[in-house]
Amino acid sequence: MTRMDGFRDRVGGLAFGGDYNPEQWDPGVWREDVRLMRRAGVNVVSLGVFAWASLEPEPGRYEFGWMDEVMDLLHGNGIAVNLATPTAAPPVWLTRLHPEVLPVMADGEPFGFGNRLQYDPSSPVYRRYAAAITTRLAERYSFHPALAMWHISNEYGPTAYNEASSAGFRRWLERRYGDLGTLNEAWTTRFWGQVYTDWDQIEVPSIPRTWMNPSRILDFKRFTSDALLECYLAERDIVRSFRDDVPVLTNFMRFYRHADYWRWAPEQDAVALDIYPDPADPASHVPAAFQFDLFRSLKGGRPWMLMEQAAGAVSQWRLNVVKEPGRMRLGSLQAVARGADSIMFFQWRASRGGQERFHSAMLPHSGPGSRTFREVTDLGREARLLSRVAGTTSRAEIAVLFDWNGWWGLEEVAGLPRNDFGYAETVMRHYTPLWEHHLAADIVSPHSDLAPYKVLVVPNAYLIDDQGVAAVTAFARAGGTVVMSFFSGVVDECNRVRPDGYPGAFRRLIGARIDEYWPARPDERFAVRFAGGRAATASWWREDIHLETGTALATYADGLLEGRAAVVANTYGSGRVVYVATLLDDAAFGATLLDEVRAAGVDDRFPGVPAHVECAVRQDERHEYVFLLNHDAGRAATVRLPGGGRNLLTGTPAGEDVELPPLAAAVVQRALDPAARSRTPH
Amino acid sequence: MTRMDGFRDRVGGLAFGGDYNPEQWDPGVWREDVRLMRRAGVNVVSLGVFAWASLEPEPGRYEFGWMDEVMDLLHGNGIAVNLATPTAAPPVWLTRLHPEVLPVMADGEPFGFGNRLQYDPSSPVYRRYAAAITTRLAERYSFHPALAMWHISNEYGPTAYNEASSAGFRRWLERRYGDLGTLNEAWTTRFWGQVYTDWDQIEVPSIPRTWMNPSRILDFKRFTSDALLECYLAERDIVRSFRDDVPVLTNFMRFYRHADYWRWAPEQDAVALDIYPDPADPASHVPAAFQFDLFRSLKGGRPWMLMEQAAGAVSQWRLNVVKEPGRMRLGSLQAVARGADSIMFFQWRASRGGQERFHSAMLPHSGPGSRTFREVTDLGREARLLSRVAGTTSRAEIAVLFDWNGWWGLEEVAGLPRNDFGYAETVMRHYTPLWEHHLAADIVSPHSDLAPYKVLVVPNAYLIDDQGVAAVTAFARAGGTVVMSFFSGVVDECNRVRPDGYPGAFRRLIGARIDEYWPARPDERFAVRFAGGRAATASWWREDIHLETGTALATYADGLLEGRAAVVANTYGSGRVVYVATLLDDAAFGATLLDEVRAAGVDDRFPGVPAHVECAVRQDERHEYVFLLNHDAGRAATVRLPGGGRNLLTGTPAGEDVELPPLAAAVVQRALDPAARSRTPH
Amino acid sequence: MTRMDGFRDRVGGLAFGGDYNPEQWDPGVWREDVRLMRRAGVNVVSLGVFAWASLEPEPGRYEFGWMDEVMDLLHGNGIAVNLATPTAAPPVWLTRLHPEVLPVMADGEPFGFGNRLQYDPSSPVYRRYAAAITTRLAERYSFHPALAMWHISNEYGPTAYNEASSAGFRRWLERRYGDLGTLNEAWTTRFWGQVYTDWDQIEVPSIPRTWMNPSRILDFKRFTSDALLECYLAERDIVRSFRDDVPVLTNFMRFYRHADYWRWAPEQDAVALDIYPDPADPASHVPAAFQFDLFRSLKGGRPWMLMEQAAGAVSQWRLNVVKEPGRMRLGSLQAVARGADSIMFFQWRASRGGQERFHSAMLPHSGPGSRTFREVTDLGREARLLSRVAGTTSRAEIAVLFDWNGWWGLEEVAGLPRNDFGYAETVMRHYTPLWEHHLAADIVSPHSDLAPYKVLVVPNAYLIDDQGVAAVTAFARAGGTVVMSFFSGVVDECNRVRPDGYPGAFRRLIGARIDEYWPARPDERFAVRFAGGRAATASWWREDIHLETGTALATYADGLLEGRAAVVANTYGSGRVVYVATLLDDAAFGATLLDEVRAAGVDDRFPGVPAHVECAVRQDERHEYVFLLNHDAGRAATVRLPGGGRNLLTGTPAGEDVELPPLAAAVVQRALDPAARSRTPH
Repeated sequence: MTRMDGFRDRVGGLAFGGDYNPEQWDPGVWREDVRLMRRAGVNVVSLGVFAWASLEPEPGRYEFGWMDEVMDLLHGNGIAVNLATPTAAPPVWLTRLHPEVLPVMADGEPFGFGNRLQYDPSSPVYRRYAAAITTRLAERYSFHPALAMWHISNEYGPTAYNEASSAGFRRWLERRYGDLGTLNEAWTTRFWGQVYTDWDQIEVPSIPRTWMNPSRILDFKRFTSDALLECYLAERDIVRSFRDDVPVLTNFMRFYRHADYWRWAPEQDAVALDIYPDPADPASHVPAAFQFDLFRSLKGGRPWMLMEQAAGAVSQWRLNVVKEPGRMRLGSLQAVARGADSIMFFQWRASRGGQERFHSAMLPHSGPGSRTFREVTDLGREARLLSRVAGTTSRAEIAVLFDWNGWWGLEEVAGLPRNDFGYAETVMRHYTPLWEHHLAADIVSPHSDLAPYKVLVVPNAYLIDDQGVAAVTAFARAGGTVVMSFFSGVVDECNRVRPDGYPGAFRRLIGARIDEYWPARPDERFAVRFAGGRAATASWWREDIHLETGTALATYADGLLEGRAAVVANTYGSGRVVYVATLLDDAAFGATLLDEVRAAGVDDRFPGVPAHVECAVRQDERHEYVFLLNHDAGRAATVRLPGGGRNLLTGTPAGEDVELPPLAAAVVQRALDPAARSRTPH
Repeated sequence: MTRMDGFRDRVGGLAFGGDYNPEQWDPGVWREDVRLMRRAGVNVVSLGVFAWASLEPEPGRYEFGWMDEVMDLLHGNGIAVNLATPTAAPPVWLTRLHPEVLPVMADGEPFGFGNRLQYDPSSPVYRRYAAAITTRLAERYSFHPALAMWHISNEYGPTAYNEASSAGFRRWLERRYGDLGTLNEAWTTRFWGQVYTDWDQIEVPSIPRTWMNPSRILDFKRFTSDALLECYLAERDIVRSFRDDVPVLTNFMRFYRHADYWRWAPEQDAVALDIYPDPADPASHVPAAFQFDLFRSLKGGRPWMLMEQAAGAVSQWRLNVVKEPGRMRLGSLQAVARGADSIMFFQWRASRGGQERFHSAMLPHSGPGSRTFREVTDLGREARLLSRVAGTTSRAEIAVLFDWNGWWGLEEVAGLPRNDFGYAETVMRHYTPLWEHHLAADIVSPHSDLAPYKVLVVPNAYLIDDQGVAAVTAFARAGGTVVMSFFSGVVDECNRVRPDGYPGAFRRLIGARIDEYWPARPDERFAVRFAGGRAATASWWREDIHLETGTALATYADGLLEGRAAVVANTYGSGRVVYVATLLDDAAFGATLLDEVRAAGVDDRFPGVPAHVECAVRQDERHEYVFLLNHDAGRAATVRLPGGGRNLLTGTPAGEDVELPPLAAAVVQRALDPAARSRTPH
Repeated sequence: MTRMDGFRDRVGGLAFGGDYNPEQWDPGVWREDVRLMRRAGVNVVSLGVFAWASLEPEPGRYEFGWMDEVMDLLHGNGIAVNLATPTAAPPVWLTRLHPEVLPVMADGEPFGFGNRLQYDPSSPVYRRYAAAITTRLAERYSFHPALAMWHISNEYGPTAYNEASSAGFRRWLERRYGDLGTLNEAWTTRFWGQVYTDWDQIEVPSIPRTWMNPSRILDFKRFTSDALLECYLAERDIVRSFRDDVPVLTNFMRFYRHADYWRWAPEQDAVALDIYPDPADPASHVPAAFQFDLFRSLKGGRPWMLMEQAAGAVSQWRLNVVKEPGRMRLGSLQAVARGADSIMFFQWRASRGGQERFHSAMLPHSGPGSRTFREVTDLGREARLLSRVAGTTSRAEIAVLFDWNGWWGLEEVAGLPRNDFGYAETVMRHYTPLWEHHLAADIVSPHSDLAPYKVLVVPNAYLIDDQGVAAVTAFARAGGTVVMSFFSGVVDECNRVRPDGYPGAFRRLIGARIDEYWPARPDERFAVRFAGGRAATASWWREDIHLETGTALATYADGLLEGRAAVVANTYGSGRVVYVATLLDDAAFGATLLDEVRAAGVDDRFPGVPAHVECAVRQDERHEYVFLLNHDAGRAATVRLPGGGRNLLTGTPAGEDVELPPLAAAVVQRALDPAARSRTPH
């Protein structure tokens, strides 16, 4: 039994709750909090995330009394505690005592006190003080009966450009490269005469003016992610040294570019997500679905934690729209549908002051009579109805490649044929047709095991390391279908152009060589014709491609490349590779991708269900749980589920035709047929 | 007799003149200047505003000879002097001797020498040197016969982030809060763990990264305004210690967010305005009218000084359009119409070099033969014809709330439901319908006496202190009409959400509670229907409002809030409150406001006069002076004044129907009827 | 025989090659490079531009072995070397040893290591190290047989705000002004009280906040250009001290605002241009033509060097479009047509890593089988066919004024009637009609000899010094035609408004005085009618102009200036002056300019040839070489050349009607008629 199994047993299924910051309130309020938490069905709270200043008001002087009282109170009311190390918000006394702890920003100025995350992760001083408060907390609460989980720090993030960061960067580089000659080669420092002859000459790439060495930038991104991870590991190891059976994790962020979560995930008992989709964007549930799939995939399919979401509006944007009635519930069920074993919020009670005083809360300024508290309470009840879903998993036959190194390669450095790549948008363009057709997909890294999949989607893998190249190639050779888009396989892991012509990594795989990359002018559109006669439009990017073993699946019908290949199909080993060498219009790209998915024999569970009804399935050894979520506020829909099942949200049987009024949801439990049982999820 | 009465007697009515900077010119030019000043009707000049470097070329070495000569020359020609302390432009030697005097900007970099206002107002060194030059000037010129007024420094402005600013901020906070516990409570520092345990830990909020504590920002705005005011007071007290019968003031700026003029005004003998409406904006005279009303109101209706305006174009903007013929005159008369007792310009003679060499002047580069000098001379003649207007006052039955604290609350801090509030624009949206209907309004602070008014307009008073809440409430209770717009009464003076649901301050006043604030997406429009059948459009903002004692004056006709209140009317004590909970289209808002104004029995002096003819009235005990200003270059108009009067600009009788060709003006003196006489202006 | 004559003899006509950076590659690659260079017809390479770190890996330790080998290898293969001093890229050890060498940027932060040009040109330390490496290079290679030219540093550019810059600025100012009183007068420092009383008080105008003294800014631009020039001269003098018969130069940039190339050109043996027209802009060959004419004119008509261009795409922009087939050749021939004696590229072989890894190269990533290498090889062959063109010159009867001081006056300082002047765009608006009609023009400075010309075009000469004023005036008086546009002759060389009304410098020349400048609102358009009846549209700018000796060539037909002059014609001495006092629409301005050009009797060689076929002529004593370049990819054209000639590119006779398919080029050699021979080009 894993630590997370123990946690699930303890909360009795899905975790339901949120961040709780009692230090902002008088003890009198705490009693009301706990009373209302019980009414809302809260079974776990994240405690003490920003409490360092309240726990250690002066260096070495601790005040645990209030937290003792809160822990006891929660425990007494059956609410488990996800206890935070408070190291994301160092007290002001630390920044006055050791100003070098404050992170220096890219422009050379220190990040002043008064926000959060005001530390240089490479600072030995910061790490020493963080270890001390973590140790004291662990000493005191490791065996408190309320303790159910450790929440290490919060949303690890700062990129620092301090002296200590440069020192850390040098150590990291020495470990990576061993000697300066190797580093100079890896960074191509002979270009523009940047050769390093002493480790001490290397600094973090601060004050970015125009154009920095792209390999140096890339390594600095890796270093920053690793430096933060070291901070996490140090605290995790402390709390684990006191007690080993409680899960330990930190909370990650959505589409967060500055930490390579593929490296972080193995160090977590479960991955946890903070996500704030913008209610002003009517399609924000689609990238949310991708995030949920990513988080399920980060630990190989195991359930993950939805750690923070908003009950309503946030307050940090220019425009903070509320979640209209029903939307908060739908987004929460969507997370569970895609593998979450929790529904949690930031925060329990809305603050009166401070930066986020208008960030919504489970208990808003307008109190327990508010719409939001009513919806929270209803959702808490539904969470209990879904308790059997906790611990179940999912299966997928399609994998989508998502790689932080590739992201950094496209977005963090200048000097590409065009310098307006958006990796997240690109990945979403590949993911969306799958989502619209209710086709389950896992998200994979270049180092993931690809064996379980029939189709691998590779969005713009400009930078991919040799291991990733080998994995993609082997996948195709063994009979998989690869759908890869343009400008892939161009540079190695050091950001150096791979030799012997474009695309150095994949020339044999795609069966073509590329003479030049041809970015298109903003207003250029090109006609494309598919072999089967389908017409499409291309824009943004073309490639001067020369077929070798590949054949043209589509050709340009006008322009200087008229008659030349726009989409290439190639047979590679036992597999099939489709290389899309331009930006097709969404419909044409979707059709191309779906053709390949179907040809690869991927199971199509929900044919004909309209895109606005999200369909996702979790399963255990005996049952499957079909989540049907109507995201449209204006259109009803009916979904046919042969054989029907039982709607867990109503506790009533679900017929074969599940009716879904606007914004409605159903979770249908169905017996697994024996064939499906044998396909154990990986 | 006040000091200003003495000044008015001395200049014989309206002051007419401008900034005079003789140190830029050879003495030969001075003679020509004075000759042309006399031709233009100049009776006062502001002298020495930037002359510190010329008066004290080295520390402690003074050169007063040139100024002696200029003072004598002016006096000999009957021109009074508004003598400036030159402390807005410290000499370069001071910044070299004491670099810490240079203000550090928000980004952490010092403001280099070469502009103006290059001082930290909290710097003890700056204050010491400023006091020294002020003392020497006062010693020398307090009893010079030319001296008619002291002009302390210039356009107080810089916000500094120096070490000395932090020290000053701490002292200010200690005075305000007494102990750290109170400060921590006021700032809600337990949010995000920002608790202060020593005064020395507090610094100015420099280098703003994302998100600073909103209460800290708010107090820093207050502190900055007060630190500048201290500089003013120190110099004022010095000059007054030499001679007590001459008015002392400084010049304020239009819509200037960084100094709370309600706190500054009591320390001035008259408030003085520098205003540069953009001639490229065809409606810039409307916010100018508001400013004029504000300045008249800042000292309770007493005449104010138009201290600086441009004779033509300015030069600091991207595009600097000239004032077309007649516009400079019209803008000047508009100021007088709304309470100014002066028409003054920056500057007398256009500079040959320096930053503002293309800023227009009374005497432009093209000399006395220019259009501008001709118009200036004509205006000087008209100023003399209006001398009896000097000293008269105005009366209004409508008050519009304008509050720097509220401004800061909406614009200086992030974290609101939407973060694109524009307070000045909002206030103008409320003021404009009154202006268009020639309804006189005073501008009031939350601490003003509201007794004289029948209607109080409260534009988006998100942050209002307890005293202001009490004043608004008492005004309604006593029978006044309050027209208040959305998102008012939300936080206290520390920027903390008031308890017990929105709008904490005004829930009983408006007779409704608000569950949530619902900012609208940019393209959302909602239909609204008024009780009387009038249709309107709402956008930008809605509120999930629940009526208590109030009734719906208008409801939404579509959207999720269909049928719910968009405008609420409530009876409160003997008064009436109308709460506009959304952004109505301008026409609908104007109609709503005017309905209430009329229902409140406000005197409507100029019904039917088109909006492009501005009508404003000054009065003394026996007469009223009706200003009629046609701002339209293409349309004539006729205004009926029953009983007629005498047009002071022509010196001829004005019939009952005053004809106003395009861009024409008339100032009609009329006998006050006995009834009006009894209504003494407050 | 000049040094450039010797160079031309050595390369046998046109130079063909590019930057060669062998230090980025293994010696094995060098052999392949040289083999492919020979195939491509390369006869010269620029060597070692960024090689400092490879030549001097530690202070004072030199590694010349690799360069010895490369020099020998090139020489052995008949490839001449343009040897660079590597001082544009100081090694990292210098910046660690002497951090003060790193330039401080305008915002007060140092420019970090990792780019290029990371030096303060005023730094004595930098200059000392630069002199040392230059001396060592010159010692070693001055008499190496490969050496054909010295390439001093690279693209001189950085503007630095260091302490050393301030010290240098002070010395420069002392040399210019002699005493502080003169400086204070020149800068009008009495405005805003900025009077300097000690040289040490003067600093570079760093951290620009709003508004700096315009004369100080202007002098700082001059100083920066001169400080960079001093760096060049120091290195030039070192290499020349070793050997005097080899040309020495540096490479300039296109439309580069920060160095006054009129001052730099006399110090070069030939001026050399780096130019990267944007292939995404279909009209980028027109400003390229202007640059080429400017570079020909910078040294009085002598041939110049095209030192760097891209073979295809660059990589520094947001969008980097490739040059479509044929465009690279056309742009290269265009440079030769307008006086270049070389076709050179950055760089020979595409880098694998570093910032510019996607900058195209003669030998791209896709190798010798690529389209680009094929086009390069073809062009190398054509360059040899054009060898007799090398050394020939051109003649023009029209001059266009182009002045860095005027540029700075309009763009570097704020405070103008409008602050969105674009000098380059303005000059192009004047040049384009000439280019479209194939009328040859030279570009002149205010100090150029104007005697050879019939027409002088003066685009917006807001700031022009007394010598320039005298030259323009004398040109008109002697019978020339001046076409001058608005806002000219306003300030003196210190940026002070010239006295006695606008336009102080040219009031008698244009025969009119200007009362005010009237910038127009963005949407304003005015009707203009020419004396001959032609109708036009004016926008952006008007002037309140009063005719004196001039007459109206065109008047406004509406607006406040209706009936007043929009274009003035004046007779001045024996000449004619046309002053265009507004921004006419392009067609009307072009017609006005061409009317004057024709009336002045300028030779119109190519009437009727469409604008998309560029026509340019070079000539020697016996022949002329007519270049015909069809820039249109869709339209053919025929150009009639009476008498025909010989097409050098085909080696065949050219008939009288030269056919030019889309994107085609012809270079027709024709015998000069005796009359033309007598008109020796100046």
